Amino acid sequence: MINLNKNIGLYTDHYELTMAQGYFLSGLHEKTASFDYFFRKNPYNGGFVIFAGLSDLLNLILSYQFSDEDCNYLKSIGFNHTFIQYLKNFRFTGSIYSVREGELVFPNEPVLRVEGNLIETQLIESILLNIINFQSLIATKAARMRLVAGEDRQLVDFGLRRAQGLGAIHASKAAMIGGFNSTSNVFSAREFGFESTGTMAHSWIQAYGDELEAFREFVKIYPDGAILLIDTFDTLKTGVPNAIKIAKELEKNGHKLLGIRLDSGDLAALSKAARKMLDEEGLHYVKIVVSNQLDEYLIRSLLEQKAPIDVFGVGTSLVIGKSEGALDGVYKLAHIGNKPTMKLSENVSKMTLPGKKSIIRFIDPETHTFCFDGIELLSVNKNEFEPDEVWIKKMENHKKLTKEEIILKVMDSGKKTVPEQNLNQIASYSQSRLKQLNEESKRFENPHTYVIGVGKKLSELQVKLKEEL
Amino acid sequence: MINLNKNIGLYTDHYELTMAQGYFLSGLHEKTASFDYFFRKNPYNGGFVIFAGLSDLLNLILSYQFSDEDCNYLKSIGFNHTFIQYLKNFRFTGSIYSVREGELVFPNEPVLRVEGNLIETQLIESILLNIINFQSLIATKAARMRLVAGEDRQLVDFGLRRAQGLGAIHASKAAMIGGFNSTSNVFSAREFGFESTGTMAHSWIQAYGDELEAFREFVKIYPDGAILLIDTFDTLKTGVPNAIKIAKELEKNGHKLLGIRLDSGDLAALSKAARKMLDEEGLHYVKIVVSNQLDEYLIRSLLEQKAPIDVFGVGTSLVIGKSEGALDGVYKLAHIGNKPTMKLSENVSKMTLPGKKSIIRFIDPETHTFCFDGIELLSVNKNEFEPDEVWIKKMENHKKLTKEEIILKVMDSGKKTVPEQNLNQIASYSQSRLKQLNEESKRFENPHTYVIGVGKKLSELQVKLKEEL
Repeated sequence: MINLNKNIGLYTDHYELTMAQGYFLSGLHEKTASFDYFFRKNPYNGGFVIFAGLSDLLNLILSYQFSDEDCNYLKSIGFNHTFIQYLKNFRFTGSIYSVREGELVFPNEPVLRVEGNLIETQLIESILLNIINFQSLIATKAARMRLVAGEDRQLVDFGLRRAQGLGAIHASKAAMIGGFNSTSNVFSAREFGFESTGTMAHSWIQAYGDELEAFREFVKIYPDGAILLIDTFDTLKTGVPNAIKIAKELEKNGHKLLGIRLDSGDLAALSKAARKMLDEEGLHYVKIVVSNQLDEYLIRSLLEQKAPIDVFGVGTSLVIGKSEGALDGVYKLAHIGNKPTMKLSENVSKMTLPGKKSIIRFIDPETHTFCFDGIELLSVNKNEFEPDEVWIKKMENHKKLTKEEIILKVMDSGKKTVPEQNLNQIASYSQSRLKQLNEESKRFENPHTYVIGVGKKLSELQVKLKEEL
Repeated sequence: MINLNKNIGLYTDHYELTMAQGYFLSGLHEKTASFDYFFRKNPYNGGFVIFAGLSDLLNLILSYQFSDEDCNYLKSIGFNHTFIQYLKNFRFTGSIYSVREGELVFPNEPVLRVEGNLIETQLIESILLNIINFQSLIATKAARMRLVAGEDRQLVDFGLRRAQGLGAIHASKAAMIGGFNSTSNVFSAREFGFESTGTMAHSWIQAYGDELEAFREFVKIYPDGAILLIDTFDTLKTGVPNAIKIAKELEKNGHKLLGIRLDSGDLAALSKAARKMLDEEGLHYVKIVVSNQLDEYLIRSLLEQKAPIDVFGVGTSLVIGKSEGALDGVYKLAHIGNKPTMKLSENVSKMTLPGKKSIIRFIDPETHTFCFDGIELLSVNKNEFEPDEVWIKKMENHKKLTKEEIILKVMDSGKKTVPEQNLNQIASYSQSRLKQLNEESKRFENPHTYVIGVGKKLSELQVKLKEEL
């Protein structure tokens, strides 16, 4: 069975170890380096990304080390004895600067920076990309569903059975960051401290054979909080009438049926018909839960049709981040020794931004709406920010706006400098930031592209380095 | 950090526990049940699926239990004291019947059957679906790449950084089952016993600033087996010429450059030009490795263009099973107590097959090609198989064919009855089975639908039960 702790050092790409050994044996490993994490494209043709996975990343880096077993394995596949001795005592001693977990971020922004020696900054590349790319993808997907569901309806993650193996564990967590209320995944609920919930399967009904008997047995055990699955035989002919009978029986004993669940058929038509039948019997309080291949587009469509749905159970589409499946985040060297560096490319959009940089978010002081972000060298004070000439027009009012540096130091010389946040705090933060984003950037069809400008000094450095190379 | 072992019992959907408790408190938990696993649709509009994940599933079921921590947690969220006492001693004591890992399977075939009491068969539903759906998806994706790459070219998994979090661990393994040669993921390589490999990153070149110096330092450490990344500045103007210089220097010292790697640009044109330049210098042995957003269609296209590529490094598309992302496998009750059962549905294609069943594969005795599969009740001997009238025409030559029952007992009363297979064995098996499948079912565009027929007795039972319900 998988125990990640035991072999965490090996949770990396082979070439990270090859290069680390190379740096070590060339005596280059004490050279300092600074790497940036950024992604190039918003997923889902959307207008934003919710940055997620930071706390897991920091905790993983704190425990990142090579056990004796790891070292023996590396020896067996040909790694050098002296380098393995070095790995035995390896700990990450670098510093990390990042936007907050739950922050709203945009393409090409260097949202996380790792500083340290060449080996340690290189070794953590794979885990960093693995964690941040995935959790940000899922948090973003969840946030899109929350945007259309509104604040009051419940969103529940039902994805464990279709998740990508153990990817399920952090998918459920990232869903909470993006605005989900609970999950069916009990492991993740316990691990990360949120609520797990569930209804019943068709097999429960099949096990009894008779739907009414199956419902009655269920509420005997769960007189409060039961949600009855009503589509096993015929939703409107037997499912709803049987649920109504049960609700009435519960009322007589001082209990209340919590809800009914639709898992097939036309969810708009069936939820309206079911609501009507329930209301006619005075069962206004019985909630309607729906599931079956939902995504943000279907949720929006159901609500546009005024389907009286209280709870959406979302599985596959959420936990695998369908249909994108991956955020294209990369990790690029921007500073080596005492010199800024960049990667040239025949493709201009793949040229990277050199040096150590900050991101300044410009905010309307009255409406608190985000106007644009500026990327500039760390050495430039946020109050002295001047856009590069390409951006002058789009950022002309920048002096009148509130300036917020959104990159914070989160790890200093291998030690965390931020307290552990609970998921509710992170989720609230991401929801509050989404409220500050203009509506046009949140729409699904051709969203407005949020402006990311480059500062003058950074632009000058880029031109200079390009010429040198 | 995640330690799955510690809380494995909770790696399940909340409703499995709710129902288990319900069965327990209703006294129904000793009732026997039989569930089928099957999927409804081949992924990628393809013609087959490689069944994968069985060994992990069996090992996980063997260790499936509830720790004191799990029990305390369940108590804290309201589960019943007596039920928790039951869970403390819970072990899976049922039996499992399955096709072999690596088997070629098709939609609607009950490829795995779980028999046991209602609680144990229900509790393992989520882990079964989580493991089998994902690993089968990735093994199938990998097999599609192997089909177009041919037997002699190398396929390497580079996906860790874009995989769905910890999903990376089994993605790399499933890729090997589908026909990949090695992975960049060192953790999985060690865990499951296959080879990890790697080249170098652009940051290695950037760290030295000068490409030739960076190459030279690399081969100083790795005089044999080095693969040089040649696209950092200009592939044909500097990358290949510098690699040629290094290869010549290595030759003088009795070493050989293993390869060069292209990671951007037109891989067909660049690989042809690079091959020509290398060959002109007598460096026929230097291999060409390519990567950059590859999938089975791009691999096919590159080879149709006669690109002289020896090794394909495949990342995102492989490990997230793009663009499908999930196999739609389900787990349905087929037998309860001493009675077969089935799930009705307004949608005929969602109606399930009742009872305990076998799958008989009919094979051409001369060519060894698979002709069709027949699903029939377990009680019918394979030599007495008669197709249901719907299938008579398509299966008319069934008596002349070799009959192979493809479902085996793999767990008996909670104990594994099959030896652990190594990955090479599983991968060889899946490759040999693919060879037995007709070419038309392997093509990517509108593949021929492999015939799955239903036997007469099973068909009669289905009709009878449908009428009863």
